[in-house]
Amino acid sequence: MLTIYSEEHRYQDGKAELIDGQLLPPFEMPRRAEMVLERVRAVGLGDILAPQDFGLAPLEAVHDARYLAFLAAAWGDWVKSGREHDALPLNWQIRGMRALEPESIDGKLSYFSFDAGTPIMSGTWRAAQASANVALTGAARVKEGARGVFSLCRPPGHHAAEDYYGGYCFLNNAAIAAQWLRDHGAAKVALLDIDYHHGNGTQSIFYDRPDVFFASLHGHPKQEFPFFLGYEDETGEGSGEGANANFPLEWGTGFERWFGALQEAARRIRTFGAEALVISLGVDTYKDDPISHFTLDSDDYLQIGRTIAGLGLPTLFVMEGGYAVEEIGVNAVNVLTGFEEAS
Amino acid sequence: MLTIYSEEHRYQDGKAELIDGQLLPPFEMPRRAEMVLERVRAVGLGDILAPQDFGLAPLEAVHDARYLAFLAAAWGDWVKSGREHDALPLNWQIRGMRALEPESIDGKLSYFSFDAGTPIMSGTWRAAQASANVALTGAARVKEGARGVFSLCRPPGHHAAEDYYGGYCFLNNAAIAAQWLRDHGAAKVALLDIDYHHGNGTQSIFYDRPDVFFASLHGHPKQEFPFFLGYEDETGEGSGEGANANFPLEWGTGFERWFGALQEAARRIRTFGAEALVISLGVDTYKDDPISHFTLDSDDYLQIGRTIAGLGLPTLFVMEGGYAVEEIGVNAVNVLTGFEEAS
Ligand SMILES: [Zn+2]
Ligand SMILES: [Zn+2]
Repeated sequence: MLTIYSEEHRYQDGKAELIDGQLLPPFEMPRRAEMVLERVRAVGLGDILAPQDFGLAPLEAVHDARYLAFLAAAWGDWVKSGREHDALPLNWQIRGMRALEPESIDGKLSYFSFDAGTPIMSGTWRAAQASANVALTGAARVKEGARGVFSLCRPPGHHAAEDYYGGYCFLNNAAIAAQWLRDHGAAKVALLDIDYHHGNGTQSIFYDRPDVFFASLHGHPKQEFPFFLGYEDETGEGSGEGANANFPLEWGTGFERWFGALQEAARRIRTFGAEALVISLGVDTYKDDPISHFTLDSDDYLQIGRTIAGLGLPTLFVMEGGYAVEEIGVNAVNVLTGFEEAS
Repeated sequence: MLTIYSEEHRYQDGKAELIDGQLLPPFEMPRRAEMVLERVRAVGLGDILAPQDFGLAPLEAVHDARYLAFLAAAWGDWVKSGREHDALPLNWQIRGMRALEPESIDGKLSYFSFDAGTPIMSGTWRAAQASANVALTGAARVKEGARGVFSLCRPPGHHAAEDYYGGYCFLNNAAIAAQWLRDHGAAKVALLDIDYHHGNGTQSIFYDRPDVFFASLHGHPKQEFPFFLGYEDETGEGSGEGANANFPLEWGTGFERWFGALQEAARRIRTFGAEALVISLGVDTYKDDPISHFTLDSDDYLQIGRTIAGLGLPTLFVMEGGYAVEEIGVNAVNVLTGFEEAS
């Protein structure tokens, strides 16, 4: 299997994120992607290719233009306001407040984000664009006929929506790739999100769309970040009704129960009749993940890969979360080798 | 003038708040209230009285019952989840997300807050209740016929709404006092918020109410926290239409322009025909305030007090913000002595 990878992910290298009430060194660190790349090399998964530059158009097909302008300018505006450390927002536009974009950089950070765990620094925009290009380059190979491609994206993307960032995500790489596949010949695309966290951004982007099916297995929003989306009764709206399927699972969920939900998600994807499949590949479902509460083991990821292969679709794997850094390479690449074995 | 004060404010003593992208020692510190009390004593403003306990009913008249239950249980739930440092939320329920209260304490913190600058600790609930009782005890004296009373509240209140905290505020002391005055004979009450920041919580609580007029002079939301309320076109809704008046002012506003807005707010209050007046008294409009951008000087606060006295109404002053700690006493008490001179 071909892997797409860019070293530019290293430009996203935060000093701190707010988590558990403290500013701590970010769990989402460059070493994550490097560990996955090492494992890709160690098992001889296949060639490793640098991304092409797809420009802004495929990002604009998914994200709001004002949001992209904000991301491009944010660090410069922050520095102009006299600060040199990582930029974090202070408050957020919750229920009853007005959705008006402020003029000050602090106001814009607040408006375009939903958490305090996602620092913006000098290289954020460059790293986020590179990550989207990694996804797009993979999508182009899938369109050209590849059975499976691995886009080793970093920063991740599935928490980012049309016009907000959060959960370490700025550009929704999987959504951008799925939209690109739609715009280049695939009549219907399915997105399957197996990251521990709900893919709230991806769901939100395609929620009213009948042509992109979204399924997510994740920690139950009554317990787990991002809390305010990911319930079972979110089934899409308008012409997208029925094209969204959430499988919220409680803390402590082990592989057997998780795998039952995966089989149900796979059944729904078969019924939908997609021409291409995009996987939001997070491995923070792992038993020793430092911020998660499922108990999957490394071998389980092989079976996940085989099950995805059983769908028989051209498949793009887009890297998302996974914070047990020592095991992230083994776990992520196990999904890919399981897929290759069964394809 | 009588001052109501409780030492229990000291139970709110945060180690850190997220501001300017960093966790810093909170600007909102116990010393603020102590400096004001010292000045009250130094000028011989009048007696200093401890608050009575009004119980939960006056809080429930303004705040959501689930929100109050959350505040009462939050620290215990946080400790049960294995943490001992101040509790801060991680993410927020912004546009497009669902207003569902999670079960986990991290989810509840996220749901019931709008910023990352307002730590919850072991004494928060106790301090917040004491602060509300300070406001209520002042309101009772106003009802009994006092011309003016000073409720030296801390923590402040005007950013807290029916069901969320933020901006150092948990219970909306001014709103609780205004509602208590309504429930004890005043047909119409006016609330005038002269803190540097918009009183978003107070506005939100009374937005559909014709019997409580709310006016606020503040940093323009396009530039200043809390960003997402405080525009001039927010004039109330339903039967409350016309009973809300915002005076957003740009960074750098000096006393002349500020005072023009105050006179217009006073004119609106006269037209409204209130029987009692509650002042959200913040002095972060001061030129050397560390988090604000207006340029009022200490003598200006005397004239503010005189102008408020000119309204000729029984008046309750409720302490809100002000972070130039060395000058907070002089500035706040200048408003009160100006009021007394002109009464
Ligand atoms: Zn995740
Ligand atoms: Zn203030």
